[in-house]
Amino acid sequence: MKTQTKDKIINDPIYGFISLDDSLILKLIDHTYFQRLRKISQLGLSYLVYPGATHSRFNHALGCMHLMKKVIYQLKNKGQIISKIESRALKVAILLHDIGHGPFSHALENSIVTEISHENLSLCFMKAINEDFNGELQTAIDIFNNKYKKSFLHQLVSSQLDMDRLDYLKRDSFFSGVVEGNIGVDRLINMMNIANNSLVVEEKGIYSIEKFLIARRFMYWQVYLHKTVVSAENMLIKILKRVKYLIMNNSNIYVTESLKIFLEKDYTIKDFNQNTNLIKYFSNLDDYEIYTCLKHWEQSKDFVLSNLSYRINNRKLLKIKICNKKISESEKHKLIESFCNKNKCSQEEAGYFIFSDKLTNDFYNNKSKINILLNNGEIKDFEKVSDQFDATILNKSSNKYFLCYSK
Amino acid sequence: MKTQTKDKIINDPIYGFISLDDSLILKLIDHTYFQRLRKISQLGLSYLVYPGATHSRFNHALGCMHLMKKVIYQLKNKGQIISKIESRALKVAILLHDIGHGPFSHALENSIVTEISHENLSLCFMKAINEDFNGELQTAIDIFNNKYKKSFLHQLVSSQLDMDRLDYLKRDSFFSGVVEGNIGVDRLINMMNIANNSLVVEEKGIYSIEKFLIARRFMYWQVYLHKTVVSAENMLIKILKRVKYLIMNNSNIYVTESLKIFLEKDYTIKDFNQNTNLIKYFSNLDDYEIYTCLKHWEQSKDFVLSNLSYRINNRKLLKIKICNKKISESEKHKLIESFCNKNKCSQEEAGYFIFSDKLTNDFYNNKSKINILLNNGEIKDFEKVSDQFDATILNKSSNKYFLCYSK
Amino acid sequence: MKTQTKDKIINDPIYGFISLDDSLILKLIDHTYFQRLRKISQLGLSYLVYPGATHSRFNHALGCMHLMKKVIYQLKNKGQIISKIESRALKVAILLHDIGHGPFSHALENSIVTEISHENLSLCFMKAINEDFNGELQTAIDIFNNKYKKSFLHQLVSSQLDMDRLDYLKRDSFFSGVVEGNIGVDRLINMMNIANNSLVVEEKGIYSIEKFLIARRFMYWQVYLHKTVVSAENMLIKILKRVKYLIMNNSNIYVTESLKIFLEKDYTIKDFNQNTNLIKYFSNLDDYEIYTCLKHWEQSKDFVLSNLSYRINNRKLLKIKICNKKISESEKHKLIESFCNKNKCSQEEAGYFIFSDKLTNDFYNNKSKINILLNNGEIKDFEKVSDQFDATILNKSSNKYFLCYSK
Amino acid sequence: MKTQTKDKIINDPIYGFISLDDSLILKLIDHTYFQRLRKISQLGLSYLVYPGATHSRFNHALGCMHLMKKVIYQLKNKGQIISKIESRALKVAILLHDIGHGPFSHALENSIVTEISHENLSLCFMKAINEDFNGELQTAIDIFNNKYKKSFLHQLVSSQLDMDRLDYLKRDSFFSGVVEGNIGVDRLINMMNIANNSLVVEEKGIYSIEKFLIARRFMYWQVYLHKTVVSAENMLIKILKRVKYLIMNNSNIYVTESLKIFLEKDYTIKDFNQNTNLIKYFSNLDDYEIYTCLKHWEQSKDFVLSNLSYRINNRKLLKIKICNKKISESEKHKLIESFCNKNKCSQEEAGYFIFSDKLTNDFYNNKSKINILLNNGEIKDFEKVSDQFDATILNKSSNKYFLCYSK
Repeated sequence: MKTQTKDKIINDPIYGFISLDDSLILKLIDHTYFQRLRKISQLGLSYLVYPGATHSRFNHALGCMHLMKKVIYQLKNKGQIISKIESRALKVAILLHDIGHGPFSHALENSIVTEISHENLSLCFMKAINEDFNGELQTAIDIFNNKYKKSFLHQLVSSQLDMDRLDYLKRDSFFSGVVEGNIGVDRLINMMNIANNSLVVEEKGIYSIEKFLIARRFMYWQVYLHKTVVSAENMLIKILKRVKYLIMNNSNIYVTESLKIFLEKDYTIKDFNQNTNLIKYFSNLDDYEIYTCLKHWEQSKDFVLSNLSYRINNRKLLKIKICNKKISESEKHKLIESFCNKNKCSQEEAGYFIFSDKLTNDFYNNKSKINILLNNGEIKDFEKVSDQFDATILNKSSNKYFLCYSK
Repeated sequence: MKTQTKDKIINDPIYGFISLDDSLILKLIDHTYFQRLRKISQLGLSYLVYPGATHSRFNHALGCMHLMKKVIYQLKNKGQIISKIESRALKVAILLHDIGHGPFSHALENSIVTEISHENLSLCFMKAINEDFNGELQTAIDIFNNKYKKSFLHQLVSSQLDMDRLDYLKRDSFFSGVVEGNIGVDRLINMMNIANNSLVVEEKGIYSIEKFLIARRFMYWQVYLHKTVVSAENMLIKILKRVKYLIMNNSNIYVTESLKIFLEKDYTIKDFNQNTNLIKYFSNLDDYEIYTCLKHWEQSKDFVLSNLSYRINNRKLLKIKICNKKISESEKHKLIESFCNKNKCSQEEAGYFIFSDKLTNDFYNNKSKINILLNNGEIKDFEKVSDQFDATILNKSSNKYFLCYSK
Repeated sequence: MKTQTKDKIINDPIYGFISLDDSLILKLIDHTYFQRLRKISQLGLSYLVYPGATHSRFNHALGCMHLMKKVIYQLKNKGQIISKIESRALKVAILLHDIGHGPFSHALENSIVTEISHENLSLCFMKAINEDFNGELQTAIDIFNNKYKKSFLHQLVSSQLDMDRLDYLKRDSFFSGVVEGNIGVDRLINMMNIANNSLVVEEKGIYSIEKFLIARRFMYWQVYLHKTVVSAENMLIKILKRVKYLIMNNSNIYVTESLKIFLEKDYTIKDFNQNTNLIKYFSNLDDYEIYTCLKHWEQSKDFVLSNLSYRINNRKLLKIKICNKKISESEKHKLIESFCNKNKCSQEEAGYFIFSDKLTNDFYNNKSKINILLNNGEIKDFEKVSDQFDATILNKSSNKYFLCYSK
Repeated sequence: MKTQTKDKIINDPIYGFISLDDSLILKLIDHTYFQRLRKISQLGLSYLVYPGATHSRFNHALGCMHLMKKVIYQLKNKGQIISKIESRALKVAILLHDIGHGPFSHALENSIVTEISHENLSLCFMKAINEDFNGELQTAIDIFNNKYKKSFLHQLVSSQLDMDRLDYLKRDSFFSGVVEGNIGVDRLINMMNIANNSLVVEEKGIYSIEKFLIARRFMYWQVYLHKTVVSAENMLIKILKRVKYLIMNNSNIYVTESLKIFLEKDYTIKDFNQNTNLIKYFSNLDDYEIYTCLKHWEQSKDFVLSNLSYRINNRKLLKIKICNKKISESEKHKLIESFCNKNKCSQEEAGYFIFSDKLTNDFYNNKSKINILLNNGEIKDFEKVSDQFDATILNKSSNKYFLCYSK
């Protein structure tokens, strides 16, 4: 009996089995740049609050692709036309949508590659891989880039209801154990349709959208912007800024080769496009490397660096308070002065330990609408058909303010 | 080795093991009136849409008691004083809170015992059992009745955040497979506290409350007021009204003994209080009996009764449309006339097949407030501290209208 | 915009969404005979021990069909040929495989339709429906009946690894809350293949089979043969036998019309085949009707009938002991005599309260082999390739004995 | 209103909420040595096959402690006496039972600290912490060390049915998505008791034990000894051995400070006991550091080291075959010779790429019995009372053999 071809199967704790039925997908997953995502955790430092939340971007990318297959099946079943080529491109685009993420992306984007969004980096990566693959990724790139004629395909990859959001809410909820973030992915996908070349949700799906938005909002405050996580992430930003400062001032600081490249100089997206080596260097960065650096830095002679590194490594985080009003400068100054006295340090150094900023919960982005397909065939903004939410509420940005400090 | 006493354990698909550690509770569960709840399904006719939703009120009552034990533990752990007697009374009160439910309670309350709420009937049942138990249930009755000095105890049994709502949302979501209704019961309970003799939720629990309310709202539209369920339940109401009418007009209709009692005469709560036999008769009613009647009624000579019964038994339900505006009388009349012509029947008879009414989603009851304990010690209405919900939205009752019809 | 055709979706608490994509299937589900399964619970009286286990055969049948679709997809994906006609027939056959079940099938088969298996009754039902459907079910019937050339198709419907077993283990485990019965359905299906026209499991699936068999064995002792369930079911058998006896002796006993037909006379499968009305009468029987009778019987003048009925209705079950050795006749006799003295009744009557029998856990049926497809292409019996199980262990029938009694 | 003391709560994806109600436990969790466990994954390289399996030993340790609280509650509820001091000591002992694990413990124990078990290292850690805590851990150490009079307490920490095994099976199953490993922890704990100063399982728990053993066996073959995992882990062992060899031969190899210490010299448990600095150095090791080294090693001039490191980093693993018979030396030699020819390397170097060994599935350890408390009060070995398993089967060690190779 001859051996039969069959799909490769990957166990996923959320969806059960994810089947990989396309040789291009299999080759992409095997690519070094994609394997790298195993070493980049999805939620950065959140595991300091939610010990289960150690899941990687690798697993998330597979999950997104699984959902993409489901939504493609649904849409075709409703009579929408999605060709084999488009279908494959969609799977590729969502699989690679996050490939440009660096370690602790939030921290990194605020300290190292400050000028470049991870979406742009993802695009650089895709282009680089596309060359290895003789152009096989071109349609996927066009869709990702929103240059493809059928614009609803882009919306499946990137919009308020894209497969990315659907998977990460479900996944982050699952691994953190915050059950309130769990969403009805099957029902949402089941209610999607296409009208006027744009992704719509059928009318009876309004409550599902409300539910989805509230779950998203909940996850923001409970997990993504949990105060302890905010403190830890901002400490990491301060640490990386400090290292950058020290290196620029010729201090002798341990730092891994690839990280050094990005600390010594600021790069723009142009640089990445012109110098293909930069992608290679960037792809070398991962969470593990940062952690190894942090252990070295604990021994640094620089008080700021060693103290903050020690704190992160041993979870002795800065205290943090969150409030609805802007933090008063005077409150901050008092804390800074007392810190300077206690630690015999400069105000500038104290600024690494006492600082404030704004938090924004952008669970609903009013620039990209969610379209509802009414039973009578009309298409309307979700904002206008929901009993529960209206434009005022949804667009009122939910801002809070935090103050990190040490006594 | 002597046999050790140990708790009785009941498997629950949601909470795993429910332990019964109190002899009074065990005796109550064994009581005929409580065993009866096994034969009354929690969600009436919803299983016609959600085949998994066959769970009984018996299981729900046990679940509530399990949550009550959890919240008592939490509150005591926060330093609140709840005596052993109060603790037992709370468990008894929640165990029995629904004991007055008849079969298909919604349908029954609209057709048979029209003047009496199930809460009042539950109280009658409790009093009856209390006599059998020589007054052991008195504190439970006082709490249920809101006559006990510590009024927060009543709130645990009956309020916007009582253990009843917590269990039924979780349970109905679980059995129906509508995952969106799943709520974070553990977190909600964990954030409960007592202040000024009243149940409060700590400030950081605001998002959990929002989540809870939206889940509740979702379950209303998706399950409790699902259009097919609305059609089926209203058909059952019409059937029972028809039987009542026929009996009062001396038709020879099969009906079980206990049901007959409640169809021949209208009783008030006074009657129940004065005539203890009524409770016994009422306790004889259950879903199974109604189903058996429905099968007999399918053979009835009365066109209305036989046709509607056949339809329920074989799930050939009346068509239904739901809309935001009141149904126009003219639309209804046209349908009625055409029905009369087709079926050679009177307008009055057609009214059993074509009718309209209002649906109300009371997911938030603005009479009973949810109190938030702010970090600064103040207590405020939830409505006033939520960014997402305000009084306007919450109090705006969500009404819809339905029209059932047959062509 | 025109309305798109799309699948009908049913929420299932286990698999999420079950999609119904075939008009024939939809029509079958709407058939009165299939709707009847809503009123027949999957686990009979087990809910007296596991309050969550109220799920119906209707839900199970849908679940089986869902798994059938999955296995068809897998097999085709491995290069096996299953035509559209066969695929539809498989779904029909599994959907209807249990349609011949009466209420409390175990009890019924031991008291009422004693000569006829539910498989034979299912076949009668299928034939009856086939006439309504102008022969559209013929291939399904041939597969069910094992008369179809590709015999592996029959194995998917009925064998040690059929979709029936896969769904009921998972479902009964889920609803009872006995997590130990949960099986890895996806992995099992993923490892199925066809060789020599017969269903095989690929070699790496051996551990999954072991796991499956032990889960099955566990469910037998923990749920299906739980001692309290055994007591309740045998009490019901005794009750039905008593009613039969009383009716045959012209006692005036309340009994519903359809049940009466089967109590007055014993029918054979021939009778069913010749008299199509019998199927109609049989289809009228359901759990609810039996429960309604039980309430009437509680009032009967016959001591045996009223006492046993009261016990079932109020869960005052007979005591039961289970042991590895046959119950001694002398032990039983002592109990009978003492019962007679206490209740002033005959020995024959006492035999309804004190009786013993054998319990058999047939978790592995050594008549129907599980075939393993080794990596080298050979096919071997599971018994011969498992390290853990061998023929001796698997074929050693696991018998126990029970004694029900009342003091 | 004064702030109430209350438990600290940690979200766990498996158990929901884990509450920490003891200040000693809280201080231990904050200890650097314990925080370190966040950076040591529970399943080493298994995430290369099961992408979800990224959970840390930190999370596992908390889970064990949670189960310990449950079993203590159960045993006390059955009348067993466990004092407050013992109860706390049990929680401490299980919390710290794995604290001596290094990164990729299996790999490490086979290459670096070859003479020392992780249990002994855990003990060293506990002693070191005990000094910081002024002896507060002494009872916990005695229990862990099996020097405490009530020997059943030790069994809760370390035996065939200890809380460690219960949590890790459930947890590894959950995160890997291999549902077959899920065990009924609540039922198992519920059936535990103490007799003759020893942990026993009540008779009706026999099927649960069978289920537990088969689940354990399943997890061994499906996850812990999955062939891809075996290949990866053995590659890591080879890499560490190679580095050790190179360092001992004075090659200039990048290696982190703490790792260097353990590569330059072999230490015994005596060394650890005498030199408290060793524990500090050892505690500095974590997964992240090894990964950072692996990236450096990819650039090494040593062919063996760079090639193997590249393979692990990019998941280009050595091929592996697993069989029931020992691998023949001649088969291996052929592969080695061909490898030497192709890569122009020595046989010794080829031995890093082509090697074989034995795999042992020790799901049941016949040295430590599981005792069953029969209903009649007797205590018997599980082996002797199970129908399904007997000594022959259980003690038959399940050995397999593997061959890793590269073409």
